[in-house]
Amino acid sequence: MSRGLFIGRFQPFHNGHYNAIKDILKMEDEVIICVASSQLSYTISNPFSSGERIEMILRSIKEMRDRVIILSTPNIESNSLWVENIIDTFPSFDKVYTNNTLVRLLWEKRGYKVSEVKFHQKNDFNGTLIRELISLDKKWENLVPVETRKYIQEIGGEKRIKDIVKIEEKLRDGAV
Amino acid sequence: MSRGLFIGRFQPFHNGHYNAIKDILKMEDEVIICVASSQLSYTISNPFSSGERIEMILRSIKEMRDRVIILSTPNIESNSLWVENIIDTFPSFDKVYTNNTLVRLLWEKRGYKVSEVKFHQKNDFNGTLIRELISLDKKWENLVPVETRKYIQEIGGEKRIKDIVKIEEKLRDGAV
Amino acid sequence: MSRGLFIGRFQPFHNGHYNAIKDILKMEDEVIICVASSQLSYTISNPFSSGERIEMILRSIKEMRDRVIILSTPNIESNSLWVENIIDTFPSFDKVYTNNTLVRLLWEKRGYKVSEVKFHQKNDFNGTLIRELISLDKKWENLVPVETRKYIQEIGGEKRIKDIVKIEEKLRDGAV
Amino acid sequence: MSRGLFIGRFQPFHNGHYNAIKDILKMEDEVIICVASSQLSYTISNPFSSGERIEMILRSIKEMRDRVIILSTPNIESNSLWVENIIDTFPSFDKVYTNNTLVRLLWEKRGYKVSEVKFHQKNDFNGTLIRELISLDKKWENLVPVETRKYIQEIGGEKRIKDIVKIEEKLRDGAV
Amino acid sequence: MSRGLFIGRFQPFHNGHYNAIKDILKMEDEVIICVASSQLSYTISNPFSSGERIEMILRSIKEMRDRVIILSTPNIESNSLWVENIIDTFPSFDKVYTNNTLVRLLWEKRGYKVSEVKFHQKNDFNGTLIRELISLDKKWENLVPVETRKYIQEIGGEKRIKDIVKIEEKLRDGAV
Amino acid sequence: MSRGLFIGRFQPFHNGHYNAIKDILKMEDEVIICVASSQLSYTISNPFSSGERIEMILRSIKEMRDRVIILSTPNIESNSLWVENIIDTFPSFDKVYTNNTLVRLLWEKRGYKVSEVKFHQKNDFNGTLIRELISLDKKWENLVPVETRKYIQEIGGEKRIKDIVKIEEKLRDGAV
Repeated sequence: MSRGLFIGRFQPFHNGHYNAIKDILKMEDEVIICVASSQLSYTISNPFSSGERIEMILRSIKEMRDRVIILSTPNIESNSLWVENIIDTFPSFDKVYTNNTLVRLLWEKRGYKVSEVKFHQKNDFNGTLIRELISLDKKWENLVPVETRKYIQEIGGEKRIKDIVKIEEKLRDGAV
Repeated sequence: MSRGLFIGRFQPFHNGHYNAIKDILKMEDEVIICVASSQLSYTISNPFSSGERIEMILRSIKEMRDRVIILSTPNIESNSLWVENIIDTFPSFDKVYTNNTLVRLLWEKRGYKVSEVKFHQKNDFNGTLIRELISLDKKWENLVPVETRKYIQEIGGEKRIKDIVKIEEKLRDGAV
Repeated sequence: MSRGLFIGRFQPFHNGHYNAIKDILKMEDEVIICVASSQLSYTISNPFSSGERIEMILRSIKEMRDRVIILSTPNIESNSLWVENIIDTFPSFDKVYTNNTLVRLLWEKRGYKVSEVKFHQKNDFNGTLIRELISLDKKWENLVPVETRKYIQEIGGEKRIKDIVKIEEKLRDGAV
Repeated sequence: MSRGLFIGRFQPFHNGHYNAIKDILKMEDEVIICVASSQLSYTISNPFSSGERIEMILRSIKEMRDRVIILSTPNIESNSLWVENIIDTFPSFDKVYTNNTLVRLLWEKRGYKVSEVKFHQKNDFNGTLIRELISLDKKWENLVPVETRKYIQEIGGEKRIKDIVKIEEKLRDGAV
Repeated sequence: MSRGLFIGRFQPFHNGHYNAIKDILKMEDEVIICVASSQLSYTISNPFSSGERIEMILRSIKEMRDRVIILSTPNIESNSLWVENIIDTFPSFDKVYTNNTLVRLLWEKRGYKVSEVKFHQKNDFNGTLIRELISLDKKWENLVPVETRKYIQEIGGEKRIKDIVKIEEKLRDGAV
Repeated sequence: MSRGLFIGRFQPFHNGHYNAIKDILKMEDEVIICVASSQLSYTISNPFSSGERIEMILRSIKEMRDRVIILSTPNIESNSLWVENIIDTFPSFDKVYTNNTLVRLLWEKRGYKVSEVKFHQKNDFNGTLIRELISLDKKWENLVPVETRKYIQEIGGEKRIKDIVKIEEKLRDGAV
């Protein structure tokens, strides 16, 4: 049995991620989806908690659930310990799927095989873009799986992103 | 849709756990299995890494996999932050299933409903006992799901437990 | 008995903070002043240690001391754990006073009531401005309570801020 | 102006602590009460959170409040960093009051003067004893200030201590 | 060029360690001495800080200094991360020298070769024994290199160990 | 015997560092080289792990090895604890050598003497510049000791720096 590891922040989970998982499952028996930066939420780049991100993924990949394992991992300042922590706390896997050159470097150094993920319509299916569209009240709903869209709306995710963007735009003093 | 949280260390995953999960799934649509003490491995009480424990569970609950979510959480010294970290990094749940009085206290303080888990044959299906049987070369194989037994043997888990027990029995100085 | 929580970094404690506390004490029996970012000192945005900031406040609010509780809290990367840590380590309170939208979001999510603080002369009574005035050798003394001014001068705080600003302005390599 | 530092865990705050503070205030203008082990709660030795312990003290030393500063500090594994963290996050002080030989060693090494605290009726006014009396349903109420007693009863502290003791007495497996 | 890693706590550095290093240098060009538990000091099992332990070693192995590298590493709760942290922060090495079965297990799992260290007169040259002898005012001086003995006496190490032992023997309450 | 402390990140070790160490050894009997930011590697400003940086230094200062002690220290958010951690885990020293004004402030506050380091040809012998030259495929080899150059080439350091620079230049989403 073969298993791939697919690492992302999923802020939010979008169609690019969804298609990548389907592609990986053509080559592997199972895929572990690793929700990175798990300690972060309510920030510009990481508006959703890892609990919420896992929920999005669970609801959006239902038909593949028997071949998908979803886990999360926090940022660790040392890149070497970040890699090792995943090895220690995740079930074993044979290959890492990523397009991030740093992630590739780190896993290859540790002796793992690394493959590119083919991202379809990379310009559209892009977390940064989607957060920006939401903050500007523009159309974003078609860029994510329908279950993810519903969930984001259910938890008031659009308002949260707009609020956080406004915070960054203001001068702040005297708090946190 | 209702969801229960079932917390344990699963050192190793045994038939008591397996039956508890089946019982919880009679009352809830889904169950989140929380692998606690996720940072520990290669100790007397925690011989298996959280990655290995997740693997045991995955292989043993295959037929329920579409209703089970497996996640892990590290020990945190502050009991309050331990609870909050689970809330933040796990998808939401409605009820906590535990027989541990401290865990009950902590979750009730945080406003959660808590239910007892009915442990069948509690004297036999017991992690401490199973680790002891393994270390003494006695029969333990019937106390865990067959897939867990196979996996423990595959990774040399019996020898590991015996080695760790021997370490504790020796006087040690001059190392770690 | 009612209690409010007032959160700030107090770099330094200024008249805006002082007036806010007086205002809060018109509505609450007691106020907890929470010195945030307690682990930081000797940086551009956080020149004073939390010990020094507590000293400034103690000396400046003497006449209200029997209704004021001063405590500190470190930054924690997870916003959820930052909130929970305050709940766990502070005496209980009924309402949070803040003008920071993120802080508001986080406490409301946790079920707390949140009120605006009315900052008088917000443009003048502003930590960033005061640190800048000090670094440029301009008049700042009238913007903070007299006891805070004296204390800052006593510990050489003006020179410290100028030194730290100079550091940031230089190219640095080969250290820390 | 002179200031003493008085360090304890205050599990719970008792008459021995109360009298010690009164004694210290005969020699010093002010005293900082340092609530140690601030991250711990709901354990046998540390049943109360640091927030609750601060509340006990606040309510019990009302008449001295203008000369008392209450702060808390977490355990840190390195003894040297534990000392330094207090120096960094507390207002300055001239002398440390303690009967603990290790604490004395650590502060003297760092260049501080250290004095003994005279504990009146040490055998009675003793946190370990008081927690034991509570767990055994024996008379404890006269050993702590009346406001502390009321507060412990208000938050259900007696039941909490009994519950935690029971937990320790049971064999535990499969949880936290 | 070949390099061995020799791991110990060196509480204190004794003749057994000294002889082991000489033996390792018969097989390797260089040896890295890893001072473990580097964050601990002023405890029964770890009376000396890692700075002091490095000093003992430096002074005692002068004639081998051009072939010896001395570094330290803190305890980390996760055994896997403890291993990886050494790999990341130490210059590379070919073999690990240890008699500790757990340490052997962990390094072999990570793919390293592990060798036994021949400890001469293991019953005498033993950290636990030496700390005990010191605390009982018995003869210990011949069990450590002369430079280590002198240094321990120079920093008042004998008194420190006796003081710490006394602390453990007393009932403690109300402090750290 | 006198000892100096020389603090740097050594990304990479260059001729400026080398000459500074030679200068310090004219005034001190020994020098401790402190490799700062020890937990960082594979970033733009910190491409090399602390293990690799220690290796560079070891190979480049061979003729001074009997008077040089090389140790490393991680970044700690609190400046006070950063200083204290070095004091606790390093052998003692008499003076700190640094050109960084913040480092000077912090050590002077802690009661240490601080001296300037004379950096020869500061514009050339500069870590930031050398990393930039490498990333642009320009001549850098003459700016570092020959043994450091060889080691960087041996571990593929030039390619690593170029890879990391490319990463920063790309838009990234969906990973770490």
